[in-house]
Amino acid sequence: MPYVNIKITREGATAEQKQELIRGVTRLLQDVLGKNPQTTFVIIEEVDTDNWGIAGETVTERRRQGK
Amino acid sequence: MPYVNIKITREGATAEQKQELIRGVTRLLQDVLGKNPQTTFVIIEEVDTDNWGIAGETVTERRRQGK
Amino acid sequence: MPYVNIKITREGATAEQKQELIRGVTRLLQDVLGKNPQTTFVIIEEVDTDNWGIAGETVTERRRQGK
Amino acid sequence: MPYVNIKITREGATAEQKQELIRGVTRLLQDVLGKNPQTTFVIIEEVDTDNWGIAGETVTERRRQGK
Amino acid sequence: MPYVNIKITREGATAEQKQELIRGVTRLLQDVLGKNPQTTFVIIEEVDTDNWGIAGETVTERRRQGK
Amino acid sequence: MPYVNIKITREGATAEQKQELIRGVTRLLQDVLGKNPQTTFVIIEEVDTDNWGIAGETVTERRRQGK
Repeated sequence: MPYVNIKITREGATAEQKQELIRGVTRLLQDVLGKNPQTTFVIIEEVDTDNWGIAGETVTERRRQGK
Repeated sequence: MPYVNIKITREGATAEQKQELIRGVTRLLQDVLGKNPQTTFVIIEEVDTDNWGIAGETVTERRRQGK
Repeated sequence: MPYVNIKITREGATAEQKQELIRGVTRLLQDVLGKNPQTTFVIIEEVDTDNWGIAGETVTERRRQGK
Repeated sequence: MPYVNIKITREGATAEQKQELIRGVTRLLQDVLGKNPQTTFVIIEEVDTDNWGIAGETVTERRRQGK
Repeated sequence: MPYVNIKITREGATAEQKQELIRGVTRLLQDVLGKNPQTTFVIIEEVDTDNWGIAGETVTERRRQGK
Repeated sequence: MPYVNIKITREGATAEQKQELIRGVTRLLQDVLGKNPQTTFVIIEEVDTDNWGIAGETVTERRRQGK
């Protein structure tokens, strides 16, 4: 039943890494709450660094400053 | 007033099909709850099959297995 | 595979009406895109009218004005 | 057209403060992007501190540590 | 702590405008609720006009009608 | 930077279990993508079983049928 939405910045996550996140989150929900993997959705959304802000700055700007 | 977010895998939904979903959901909310279509938002988000997981597998992998 | 999130104001939707929305949206996705109901999630979220704004006003305020 | 979702911890935001957030965000979208307030939705969701985690800790725990 | 998600139609918002939205929303949350900018996330998502519906019509269609 | 939203049915998840989910997801993102826990948000939302549908049925109804 769980629905998990993971938003990360679009900075090169590979298909293998995304598969690993999906497998890991699904197993975590099974281990902690006994949730059925067959009805566990995990959706990963990759967001452009111009479109993600922290402390009032875009991640693009923070990367330029080495943050 | 309703806000509806529909996430589907990016597997070729046409503009006509998306229009049909928007029309259908808007009418459903009007019929069931009397909601005003003028203030009903429907947003469709298409997600890459590498980014959608069920049962710990990406949809890309499940398609490869014919699921 | 579809995940549908419906946000409505918390204004008395009954269990039967919510069941009707869930059934209707699931059937619509099956009819329009051939999606499998067994892996179609529909989640309804009811939001307090103090917490929903349109045109810069809360719905609570708009209701007071008869909008 | 904009849809804005604001998630904050449930720590006593008043109706007036939520109205102020709704008004401020709506005006910001009008000023920056010329968006029509009449079709601008702002939804505020208040999350229990047990249900919000940062740095692997719940906000409830961080508050106990004075963070 | 706040998480803000802004969905707008993909109609040419510039990097500068998105930076302005991020800065403005972060300052608003600081002014109204005293939230710490360092832990304020703002995520902007741009949605194709075929994928956004109001009053049962896609924004693409409404633009064609001059709405 | 990651933002993770976990939706589960409201069926008695304890504060400890939610802390475990938050810790587990944060560590997973650190291990797989090297993400900084200090700027990793995890938000858990618990949804009434009347408000969650699968295969066109509410979870309330499915529980009644022993599913």
